[in-house]
Amino acid sequence: MAAPIFLLTDFGDRDAYVGVMKAIMLSIDPSLVILDLCHGIEPQNVVSAAYVLSSAVQYLPNGSIVVAVIDPGVGTSRRIGVFVFDHFVLLAPDNGLATLVLEQFRCEMAVALDPKQLVDRPPSATFHGRDLFAPAAAYLATGNVHIDQLGSRVDAGSLIRLDLNPRFDGGPLKASILHIDRFGNIVTNVQAERWGITHEHHWMCRIGQDNIPLVRTYADRGEGEPLAYIGSSGYVEIAIRNGSAVERYGKVPTVFIERQG
Amino acid sequence: MAAPIFLLTDFGDRDAYVGVMKAIMLSIDPSLVILDLCHGIEPQNVVSAAYVLSSAVQYLPNGSIVVAVIDPGVGTSRRIGVFVFDHFVLLAPDNGLATLVLEQFRCEMAVALDPKQLVDRPPSATFHGRDLFAPAAAYLATGNVHIDQLGSRVDAGSLIRLDLNPRFDGGPLKASILHIDRFGNIVTNVQAERWGITHEHHWMCRIGQDNIPLVRTYADRGEGEPLAYIGSSGYVEIAIRNGSAVERYGKVPTVFIERQG
Amino acid sequence: MAAPIFLLTDFGDRDAYVGVMKAIMLSIDPSLVILDLCHGIEPQNVVSAAYVLSSAVQYLPNGSIVVAVIDPGVGTSRRIGVFVFDHFVLLAPDNGLATLVLEQFRCEMAVALDPKQLVDRPPSATFHGRDLFAPAAAYLATGNVHIDQLGSRVDAGSLIRLDLNPRFDGGPLKASILHIDRFGNIVTNVQAERWGITHEHHWMCRIGQDNIPLVRTYADRGEGEPLAYIGSSGYVEIAIRNGSAVERYGKVPTVFIERQG
Repeated sequence: MAAPIFLLTDFGDRDAYVGVMKAIMLSIDPSLVILDLCHGIEPQNVVSAAYVLSSAVQYLPNGSIVVAVIDPGVGTSRRIGVFVFDHFVLLAPDNGLATLVLEQFRCEMAVALDPKQLVDRPPSATFHGRDLFAPAAAYLATGNVHIDQLGSRVDAGSLIRLDLNPRFDGGPLKASILHIDRFGNIVTNVQAERWGITHEHHWMCRIGQDNIPLVRTYADRGEGEPLAYIGSSGYVEIAIRNGSAVERYGKVPTVFIERQG
Repeated sequence: MAAPIFLLTDFGDRDAYVGVMKAIMLSIDPSLVILDLCHGIEPQNVVSAAYVLSSAVQYLPNGSIVVAVIDPGVGTSRRIGVFVFDHFVLLAPDNGLATLVLEQFRCEMAVALDPKQLVDRPPSATFHGRDLFAPAAAYLATGNVHIDQLGSRVDAGSLIRLDLNPRFDGGPLKASILHIDRFGNIVTNVQAERWGITHEHHWMCRIGQDNIPLVRTYADRGEGEPLAYIGSSGYVEIAIRNGSAVERYGKVPTVFIERQG
Repeated sequence: MAAPIFLLTDFGDRDAYVGVMKAIMLSIDPSLVILDLCHGIEPQNVVSAAYVLSSAVQYLPNGSIVVAVIDPGVGTSRRIGVFVFDHFVLLAPDNGLATLVLEQFRCEMAVALDPKQLVDRPPSATFHGRDLFAPAAAYLATGNVHIDQLGSRVDAGSLIRLDLNPRFDGGPLKASILHIDRFGNIVTNVQAERWGITHEHHWMCRIGQDNIPLVRTYADRGEGEPLAYIGSSGYVEIAIRNGSAVERYGKVPTVFIERQG
């Protein structure tokens, strides 16, 4: 059984963009197993996609291939990277989408995809998911094509990384937002473990005038009350119990985080 | 071929929550067949989920496993139920989600899932879909784990059921709303067969000042006119022909239903 | 391995409508491979669905079956067509949904589905996706049922086609809108190749007072500037770089297209 292929895009559900990618992959090998990681990334929001990707990769089956197409630079000279990690391979535009994954896992090898080695006619200027990503992933998954046949090796350090770290200059940690989830929960860029944030001590988050305690889960606060907690991906998140934090605080609040005991 | 697994959640499409559940299940057994029943349930709307679930289960292939995660109580002491029916097994939080299914089919056996029997480390406080539901379903689907290995048996009667019945005190039936579908159609809690409602007689629904006749299908009314009809799941629904009933009547109208001839 | 089945509907993600169709097909044959082409078509928008369908079919694996259910006439006497093309079979209501596909590929044979030959009890009046389309597609995919067993042959010319052509009376081409995609891009009904529109010459689109040049890709214009381009399906599209054309121009603008050099 071939390795499964997981798709992550901002293509949404109004078009056949994702379905066409699957059709092309199955045309190459009808036995391929293709799964959706997520297609509702906010259009062109590379930061949000970087977070969603990093929240998922540690759970992938060995040998998985992830195709991530959030690609505002499609049609320009931006490169497409093929990143090899220990238990999975990632295909993504070289726009910082891999930033957080590259912090989590060691990239063993990277290749810049060369369209001419992959397809006979030039790709369209607006849909590389269909014309490049889908066939490249399918060829890799079948095992008939080696990654070096897709392009030339590049130094992983030469690939674009975004600065997604919180600011810290001695006072409270100054966090910004990686992602808003479906429930309106706000995911900050503060990885709890890295900053020593745990339930054993008292931590307080502040947005505007609101002081928001770090608790264990939603039910530790009353209905409609804000809470901070260590989310399922290990980042500090802000929520409203049975409500929406993004409705209360907007999409780009600054969050100050400080230990209080 | 292992039994298919069907997923029902309120996780939406902005995150990899569903994709991660699939990744975990395929890590346990790459040959598992996993399908989406629905992921766009309104956040934490257990009633709507109970309806959507009940509209689907009778069509499931024999031996299916359904994983339903609409779970506002995640991280509390709420139980997770494993419900065995004749042709399928349901995993769902013990919050009433199974209410309508338990009316449709006889529950042959129920188990309260014990996390310690399932996983080595404690689950996260906010994402049991990933940490408990996904592995439990995958182990069951492979057939290598018996349901009794997942926890201890409980009396199905001890599990939470919601009161989703219409009110009747001799006058018109007083219906409330189970679900709003994608077309803005309003699904009431009145099962036509149980209340003897058929096309052979004249039935009238009333919302506010609007009198809405029960007809067979959309085309029996003019463009923009409201209609009541027996929906594809057997419940009385309210629609606007080529329009949206929820836009006209709101999300929680009371519907009075009465026979007129 | 049976031919894959691709589903295209306007059922959205709030209900189990799509999941139920899959459950029924897997009940008929658990080895069927079922994929989503798209389920977020605007409710009852047959024109948009006709475009999305036509954008996908050329990429389908040989022998695919496409089930397209955008069906405002469900429950009326409208027919259901089974259209046989060289490399795929299409099941769709006879409401014009196949219009653009019938322009792209030669229909080798068409059958009007006869419910009585397919199912024992009469279908519901509102959900033929479940009661007719799903079993018909599954039976075809298994290869155990021949298309002629599903109904009687009809002349493909007798099936409904919509007039989706732009208007041309010597001045600028007067285009209308087929589809709005997830990024707010507006897809016009002008197929570039048919009208001789290429990047080699200067073409200008006009919406209201805005003159919008035809360029190769998004990055050929500045942030927030409108652009016209030949989309990935070959039609002229209007976009705003890193923005939404439908927000600026609305859903039904008239677009005038003219060569200027």
